[in-house]
Amino acid sequence: MTSRSTTTTARPSSEGRAVARTQTLLKGKDGIGTVRRTTLPGGLRVVTETLPSVRSATFGIWANVGSRDETPSLNGATHYLEHLLFKGTKKRTALDISAAIDAVGGEMNAFTAKEFTCYYARVLDTDLPLAIDVVCDMLTGSLIEQADVDAERGVILEEIAMTEDDPGDCVHDLFAHTMLGDTPLGRPVLGTVDTINDLDATRIRRFYKKHYDPRHLVVAAAGNVDHNKVVRQVRAAFEKAGALKDSEATPLAPRGGRRAIRTAGGLEVVNRKAEQAHVVLGMPGLARTDDRRWALGVLNTALGGGMSSRLFQEVREKRGLAYSVYSYTSGYADCGLFGVYAGCRPSQVHDVLKICRDELDQVAEHGLTDDEIGRAIGQLAGSTVLGLEDTGALMNRIGKSELCWGDHMSVDDMLARIAAVTPDEVREVARDILGQRPSLSVIGPLKDKQAARLHEAVS
Amino acid sequence: MTSRSTTTTARPSSEGRAVARTQTLLKGKDGIGTVRRTTLPGGLRVVTETLPSVRSATFGIWANVGSRDETPSLNGATHYLEHLLFKGTKKRTALDISAAIDAVGGEMNAFTAKEFTCYYARVLDTDLPLAIDVVCDMLTGSLIEQADVDAERGVILEEIAMTEDDPGDCVHDLFAHTMLGDTPLGRPVLGTVDTINDLDATRIRRFYKKHYDPRHLVVAAAGNVDHNKVVRQVRAAFEKAGALKDSEATPLAPRGGRRAIRTAGGLEVVNRKAEQAHVVLGMPGLARTDDRRWALGVLNTALGGGMSSRLFQEVREKRGLAYSVYSYTSGYADCGLFGVYAGCRPSQVHDVLKICRDELDQVAEHGLTDDEIGRAIGQLAGSTVLGLEDTGALMNRIGKSELCWGDHMSVDDMLARIAAVTPDEVREVARDILGQRPSLSVIGPLKDKQAARLHEAVS
Repeated sequence: MTSRSTTTTARPSSEGRAVARTQTLLKGKDGIGTVRRTTLPGGLRVVTETLPSVRSATFGIWANVGSRDETPSLNGATHYLEHLLFKGTKKRTALDISAAIDAVGGEMNAFTAKEFTCYYARVLDTDLPLAIDVVCDMLTGSLIEQADVDAERGVILEEIAMTEDDPGDCVHDLFAHTMLGDTPLGRPVLGTVDTINDLDATRIRRFYKKHYDPRHLVVAAAGNVDHNKVVRQVRAAFEKAGALKDSEATPLAPRGGRRAIRTAGGLEVVNRKAEQAHVVLGMPGLARTDDRRWALGVLNTALGGGMSSRLFQEVREKRGLAYSVYSYTSGYADCGLFGVYAGCRPSQVHDVLKICRDELDQVAEHGLTDDEIGRAIGQLAGSTVLGLEDTGALMNRIGKSELCWGDHMSVDDMLARIAAVTPDEVREVARDILGQRPSLSVIGPLKDKQAARLHEAVS
Repeated sequence: MTSRSTTTTARPSSEGRAVARTQTLLKGKDGIGTVRRTTLPGGLRVVTETLPSVRSATFGIWANVGSRDETPSLNGATHYLEHLLFKGTKKRTALDISAAIDAVGGEMNAFTAKEFTCYYARVLDTDLPLAIDVVCDMLTGSLIEQADVDAERGVILEEIAMTEDDPGDCVHDLFAHTMLGDTPLGRPVLGTVDTINDLDATRIRRFYKKHYDPRHLVVAAAGNVDHNKVVRQVRAAFEKAGALKDSEATPLAPRGGRRAIRTAGGLEVVNRKAEQAHVVLGMPGLARTDDRRWALGVLNTALGGGMSSRLFQEVREKRGLAYSVYSYTSGYADCGLFGVYAGCRPSQVHDVLKICRDELDQVAEHGLTDDEIGRAIGQLAGSTVLGLEDTGALMNRIGKSELCWGDHMSVDDMLARIAAVTPDEVREVARDILGQRPSLSVIGPLKDKQAARLHEAVS
């Protein structure tokens, strides 16, 4: 991402406190917010996007830890910990935490991914101080007591059971396993019944101490927010918790991305009784930082990103073979995946897979038409701007940018980069990515004869 | 809902055209939009909410038809028709329709419910004329050809299969059946495999002609929109399709609501292999127009509307018995439902049901604490205001208000009504609703011994 730093100010040290550095990273205009960053002593980063035209604010804290940081026996610990941070602090019970945000009609939640964890609350702007107080308390003061670990174990096991019962969801976990095997990135975020049953408070607390140091965290707020006020309140909350003592500490650099990941690939089938079978046909994609990601974004959109996309037209519109069919990309620090998903009745799996494979081969060989590329560029540009009205989406954008890139890109620059994608770039990335031998993951009620033919799609 | 009409203007007839009546229904301020309505000759209503601070607009058309308007053999026709309106018009193929909105990054979709159907597109404000053109064309010029009906049949059957595979979703269909039996409101919106296989173009076209007359439609647009421009473009599109010829026609009155609905109730169990069992424990609720709905909203929120709610605390937070547990209300023109949902492993179904039943009984008898009522009122108020930032939500609010009430309520009036709910009103509605004998619907892998004990929850 391009750096857009425009001004740098240093707040003078008062009362012997260490100096915080504040920068304006992006200047706002016409409904686009101003983005500022302050790095606090202790290495805590605070980024905000100020959009005075809205009446709400979303406050979040991002931790640079995800399931890929887990050893095999710790699998699921990051997500377990995310649940436990809602269970109580030195100051608040679990009910105190949820009641505080419920009482003002806010929405509080968290999500755990393979490379990060995020906690957030969306509230009316007047309730922002409350949201900051509660979320900072959760992040800095969680107790993680054994009794809570035991009560929450049941909830996590129910979440695993619920996901197991949703094959359209867990076929993506299976695909990660097919592609990346029993590696940190190949394992599920939720963990397994066995690892969850084995985790205890001591190990989770150790994991918490290690990964929730302020150097590993990014605080992000977006909406009708005042940067300096947010910084002051966050600083006070973290200082009160004794979390910013090391005035020499500097923020952790974004996760590195030069290590090549072994990809396994092949064919994995899980037989399960249901009406539909769920397939993901795919191949290695691109790392998050790969320059070709813009072209891959256009390719992905044209191939399976909307109702006018090739796959939707060929599989659903013309033949009525599936209700849901789409393509997607996942980008990590050092690798990525590209996948095509479809859900259909088992008797139609071969037709669906043949069409998808044919389209992938066609596009790998001949690229897309200019019409398709133009439409995909318009689609990405329009949806990028439409995605900027929700303070939750804004908070996600700046928080993730800071954590994963340490940098921010203006909307205009993003739109320019999307518009600059050329047919040649798309053709090249199509050849590079779609030209690879595909792998296949299937969950569904396949008969032996049906399962025996699945290899056709990947040979 | 209270009428808030402030001004009435009549546009003079020009070129012999019939007069359209325009009213300002709600005056905007501080980020709240101005709501206007124009009734066109032909009986077509156009309502808009203008919010100049946003850069997007959502345009929708609501039809006063849902699955409750179907005979048993037509079950699923409303939803089938909704799909077919995307399949092509005299001017556009299916690809033309989707490509037009995709090319500008817009989001186009539709949903069918028991009492209405809605088609909408969310786009950048500069693309609003395009969205109006496409959606009006779909509503007025659909071909509904037999070949499209046949191709789309596969898609609908896949959608039914997908829903069947999602017991956390279809347990609500089962609950409607448990409560309302084989009646129009008790039948599923999607229809059944049998009815879908039996429907043909002739019958669906007849259904379309009958229910998509302009008198049955409400056009709604929200965001950075100009009321008069929207009206002019919609009028031109409908006139071009010859749809506004009857200058004497007046809009259909909102669906009536005095007819008593027979409720069946009892216990229904569908055995299905899975990790989790899904239960809905509930009883008759309130019709959409019932004055007690504000108190029921508070009750529902306190009982199962958030993480601090009774059911979440008792079932998940304290005991870890479920991941998902909540209560909800459905309000129709003449009746309603109140339900408590939980998903958990079969071995825990009885504990979960016992806790839910005990809480329902407790609240029916003793009401809620003042703390709980205060928190629920705050939660409803805050989430009401937070829900006003998305132009899609605004379009839904004004479209549904016009269709179902023929009237609009200001945000201030809504907040005042929520704040005015008294502990006595909540106690009364709790006694009236929760004091009724509950019914129970269950989908899951229950052993005979487990299933045999289910009646305990409803006796």
